Amino acid sequence: MTHELKTGGDRGYLRIATEEAFAVREQIDAYLRIVRDGTADRGVTSLWGFYAGSPSERATKIIERLLDLDGQRIADMDATGIDIAILSLTSPGVHPFEADEAKAMVRRANDQLAEAVARHPTRYVGMTSVAPQDPAWSAAEIARGKALGFKGVMINSHIQGEYLDAAKFDPILRAAVEVDQPIYIHPQSPPDTMIGPMLEAGLDGAIFGFGVETGMHLLRIITSGVFDRYPDLKIIVGHMGEALPFWLYRLDYMHRAGVQSKRYECIKPLKKTIFDYMRENVYVTTSGMAWSPAIKFTQDVLGVDRVMYAMDYPYEYVADEVRAHDLLDIDDSAKKKLMQTNAERVFKL
Amino acid sequence: MTHELKTGGDRGYLRIATEEAFAVREQIDAYLRIVRDGTADRGVTSLWGFYAGSPSERATKIIERLLDLDGQRIADMDATGIDIAILSLTSPGVHPFEADEAKAMVRRANDQLAEAVARHPTRYVGMTSVAPQDPAWSAAEIARGKALGFKGVMINSHIQGEYLDAAKFDPILRAAVEVDQPIYIHPQSPPDTMIGPMLEAGLDGAIFGFGVETGMHLLRIITSGVFDRYPDLKIIVGHMGEALPFWLYRLDYMHRAGVQSKRYECIKPLKKTIFDYMRENVYVTTSGMAWSPAIKFTQDVLGVDRVMYAMDYPYEYVADEVRAHDLLDIDDSAKKKLMQTNAERVFKL
Repeated sequence: MTHELKTGGDRGYLRIATEEAFAVREQIDAYLRIVRDGTADRGVTSLWGFYAGSPSERATKIIERLLDLDGQRIADMDATGIDIAILSLTSPGVHPFEADEAKAMVRRANDQLAEAVARHPTRYVGMTSVAPQDPAWSAAEIARGKALGFKGVMINSHIQGEYLDAAKFDPILRAAVEVDQPIYIHPQSPPDTMIGPMLEAGLDGAIFGFGVETGMHLLRIITSGVFDRYPDLKIIVGHMGEALPFWLYRLDYMHRAGVQSKRYECIKPLKKTIFDYMRENVYVTTSGMAWSPAIKFTQDVLGVDRVMYAMDYPYEYVADEVRAHDLLDIDDSAKKKLMQTNAERVFKL
Repeated sequence: MTHELKTGGDRGYLRIATEEAFAVREQIDAYLRIVRDGTADRGVTSLWGFYAGSPSERATKIIERLLDLDGQRIADMDATGIDIAILSLTSPGVHPFEADEAKAMVRRANDQLAEAVARHPTRYVGMTSVAPQDPAWSAAEIARGKALGFKGVMINSHIQGEYLDAAKFDPILRAAVEVDQPIYIHPQSPPDTMIGPMLEAGLDGAIFGFGVETGMHLLRIITSGVFDRYPDLKIIVGHMGEALPFWLYRLDYMHRAGVQSKRYECIKPLKKTIFDYMRENVYVTTSGMAWSPAIKFTQDVLGVDRVMYAMDYPYEYVADEVRAHDLLDIDDSAKKKLMQTNAERVFKL
């Protein structure tokens, strides 16, 4: 796996990376503040207490790269053959903050991102970040994001322990449908009501907790009937669908059993199967899962039109993972969809 | 998929089902008691408040079949071509009870199971259930179980919010190694420290919560170094490995990152990769996952010697799922391993 990684399409496709993170300094400072003053939840304390405070090489390199939207990032994209990065504010965004601070901060972050896209219009695409604590404000920010040229909406999973299926967040879903842009649900640490035994064992982060929390978020969206309310809503999740593609058979079996038994008031008949929603409303990306068996499995069960490449820069900046995608044993048409054209279609580039 | 399902090996293999549940009446009564008096945790209240109290067809049929160790069960096995059922006390076993009650109850349950195996020696194999609240007592019960002819040890996942990687449970692990029998970790509802947003959305049970709780349990066992302490320990998990096979690439990547960054004191270097432990110490069964793509994926990444058939009777009693295994597009040798010989080897039948 030693071929040179070049931008420009020399392998028959452009590489569009769809889950690429940036941060603004005031955001990192604010994480540190709430970690230090004890108002952060346990997940933010675990995640940002580490990244924002650790002298480890992993932490310092990641912080440097998150904050850079120019030279270092473009150089890293050039070095790994990434033609276009679809950028979003890193997790957990402004979710942990009080609403007024969150709104002011995320608006400035969106402005900074728009300026960076203007400086590098052929290399960057932006997603709108919001302050979902204030759903109506967020709906307006989604419209403003579209006017700024952004192509999707980033939600950093739970909102202080609440999820997008709650009625209060309806304005955000409606706004995404109205601007006809996908919502990308990116993991964050599980909320205090879930993190206990994962945190205790050091498994609350990207190794495990991220996936189960975000997989659950998507599953809640499906089982609560969000896609019956909004059949045109598009949701993207990373990390190969946060394992929901692997669970599909069991999800549908147990959902049917739950509907029939009436065990829960909130588990009701849906218009379609969970499998259907996953194949019609959901897109997944390969962030953190640069592994041929899982990519091919997911393409097989969801369809080659629903899987998109992501690097997860700067958390996962590994040239050999790009090569692993290049060398996938799939046909050229499927590979071009994976690396380029699915993203062009879903984000309307 | 309409071929007749017969016992006796007419398709070239016996069908050995490895995750088959039974219950004793006093156990169900005790679940109901702790649900009613409010001492049960939220997961037991959700699970057994439903099964033990619901008039729904699903609940009443399951209770009837759990309690039967003779006519109905043998008839159901005959009707679906199951030659041998490996039986274990249904989840959460006696884990929710105070230790003295738990020990007395599980000892009687083991005796009842031994009697049932004696009545149907060609059809049943037993696993020892324990009261892990008392690890030293459980170690002795594991030895007694071997003397009774049992072939494995059942742990119904968390022990009142604790996990087998805790030092206090070491006698149980050591006893399993000493009798050279596998430990089967069966799901139960997540503990109160984890169940919050799953319970709220009706997703705490087999549809989702079971898998993430038990997958986490196995991952804790691996990352805490249990298999370095006990290289001969064998762990079985159902539901196709509770999705850990799908996550393997990311687990190893993020485990390496965690070791290097020293983010957690409890995430330390291991002698092998997580992939290695999954391929050397872990076996998985197909309970609840009678789905060709997931079975073939798991056989591909873990090896055909590590995947065993399970029906999950009586929770999942579906003749077409047996046929789905019969009709898997894998070679005869791999199919015989899946349905028969892996179980014979792992359980030493």
